[in-house]
Amino acid sequence: MSIQDLCSLIQPLDASLYAKAKGRLDRLTKPLGSLGRLEELAASYVTITGELKPNIPRGVVFTFAADHGVALEGVSAYPREVTPQMVLNFLRGGAGVNVLARHAGVDVRVVDIGVDYEFGVMPGLLDRKIMKGTRNLLVEPAMTRDQAERAISVGIELAAEAVREGIGLIGTGEMGIGNTTPSAAITAVMTGRPAAEVTGHGTGVDESVRTRKVTVIQRAIDLHRPNPADPLDVLTKVGGLEISGLAGLMLGAAAARVPVVLDGFIAGTAALIAVGLQPLCREYLIASHRSVEQGHRAILDHLRLKPLLDLDLRLGEGTGACLGMDLVGAAIKIYTEMATFDEAGVSDKA
Amino acid sequence: MSIQDLCSLIQPLDASLYAKAKGRLDRLTKPLGSLGRLEELAASYVTITGELKPNIPRGVVFTFAADHGVALEGVSAYPREVTPQMVLNFLRGGAGVNVLARHAGVDVRVVDIGVDYEFGVMPGLLDRKIMKGTRNLLVEPAMTRDQAERAISVGIELAAEAVREGIGLIGTGEMGIGNTTPSAAITAVMTGRPAAEVTGHGTGVDESVRTRKVTVIQRAIDLHRPNPADPLDVLTKVGGLEISGLAGLMLGAAAARVPVVLDGFIAGTAALIAVGLQPLCREYLIASHRSVEQGHRAILDHLRLKPLLDLDLRLGEGTGACLGMDLVGAAIKIYTEMATFDEAGVSDKA
Repeated sequence: MSIQDLCSLIQPLDASLYAKAKGRLDRLTKPLGSLGRLEELAASYVTITGELKPNIPRGVVFTFAADHGVALEGVSAYPREVTPQMVLNFLRGGAGVNVLARHAGVDVRVVDIGVDYEFGVMPGLLDRKIMKGTRNLLVEPAMTRDQAERAISVGIELAAEAVREGIGLIGTGEMGIGNTTPSAAITAVMTGRPAAEVTGHGTGVDESVRTRKVTVIQRAIDLHRPNPADPLDVLTKVGGLEISGLAGLMLGAAAARVPVVLDGFIAGTAALIAVGLQPLCREYLIASHRSVEQGHRAILDHLRLKPLLDLDLRLGEGTGACLGMDLVGAAIKIYTEMATFDEAGVSDKA
Repeated sequence: MSIQDLCSLIQPLDASLYAKAKGRLDRLTKPLGSLGRLEELAASYVTITGELKPNIPRGVVFTFAADHGVALEGVSAYPREVTPQMVLNFLRGGAGVNVLARHAGVDVRVVDIGVDYEFGVMPGLLDRKIMKGTRNLLVEPAMTRDQAERAISVGIELAAEAVREGIGLIGTGEMGIGNTTPSAAITAVMTGRPAAEVTGHGTGVDESVRTRKVTVIQRAIDLHRPNPADPLDVLTKVGGLEISGLAGLMLGAAAARVPVVLDGFIAGTAALIAVGLQPLCREYLIASHRSVEQGHRAILDHLRLKPLLDLDLRLGEGTGACLGMDLVGAAIKIYTEMATFDEAGVSDKA
């Protein structure tokens, strides 16, 4: 199926479902609305899925890994070999996302969509490599349009497979040394803000490196002139393979009415692409947290998404998404397990 | 043991433990500090408990229930009989706190410290009733000084019993129709702010009832002139039995180096009392969330506590504390389960 055909399957949400969910929440033994955003989250879950009596969904975080040609410009605090090293860490269960996924009771699936390393046969690793990292966006387009489309399709297909297995909640994660640079470039292009405003310290570079990142990003934008009305053009010129895969994952999940819990900044740039391709996709996204990375605020504003958490996270991998998925579980339990005033014999408001 | 003797057992935290915990966190496979407040939380837990290799603690939320004479003044949206009705709901597991406690893997213990109802023998209910609700603080002191002391001692003893059973994390919860009125009064007295600034809508009263609450609180303060330098005097004159019990719980836990996860506004007023009695107690408190109830911000500022969550909650019962305890668990797992750079063979920062 083409990306365009997939996008046409995504439907607007049915507001009457939200009202029905809210009706149940209002009969539960608590003052109206007193569980705040947990109630909103439960009602959103019901509306997205159409399940008026939901079970706790099986959840999966997809962690897409890829390398970036622009890492050659010294934009990261870590050497490029850390991308494959961290993939191995994910597979052994020792990374932050593994710990928080176990805590939240969700699985992690690690996808090599463009790591510059030959893993060979590696149990647990999903080999969907499009190429060994993008090209250096400072001097040439990061990839071809065909490669961007194929990377999106990887995400679409992974979402579809997960849905067929009965997965009902999808989280987004990523790993890729250098990937805050393409992310800031995408954010600048898609939100129309200056590169300096949306470029942060990534894994922890100092101010001089951040200034270099801004220069690299501005030059790349000046060179390629990515067209924000054509998100594939943006991905092609200044994107990343994991970002493309994540955008596809979001579209694929939305088409199947499966809620997507976004991680932080990188996931946010993928959401800008997905929503650029199909604005209705936005309604299927749940923002887990606000990242320290300064461009993330611009993304959340642009997408009109209000994050659940603000815990000064900036790790990525899907760590924030896991915490958000845990809250989704809590919200569904509130919706399904709390007694109503009638059931409990509690007097309602006078 | 007297309250004063108990307070003298509470020790200042050892900053070298925090540094040791941070040292381990800095060797884990993630950019320095990139898990933000989860890292702070893990280091705080280690510092409070002294456990450099902590296990996940067994957690309990204590939900203290009591009635309030001032409810006669029409300061709540709900009738007074809701206090015992909700106690029964807690015991059956149908309330918000039960659902979120199960989600977080912690237990709920329900304590009748002053409900105006004869429960008889009721499995699961801890009968520690001091009196059948406080008196109406608009016309007389809410209780005697002896009653306030006994209510604090109930909390101290429950904490001590829990610690003897091996409980390593304590959450605070409460139920008491009308209890945002004494809470706002305590907040005004202990923080020195005007009643109007710290009085909110409680369970959802309209603006005219809120205005009446402010008047009631201001008149009570003018009548009794509670002395903020003597927290027992404040409890006696404008306090509540559940608030007193919670203050004792905090002191008892701190004396045993067990972290206390605070719920929202009512728990915050109990913390003002506990910290008033022993300023070192503050270091053992973890603020789970910022409540919608407007006085809570003043409390958190006064105590210099930064809440983990801001989810527009205003239910009480310990619901926010459960979510906070879940995050404590996540933080400890990050600290203990993540691989170090050495273990994982990942290159550290250049």
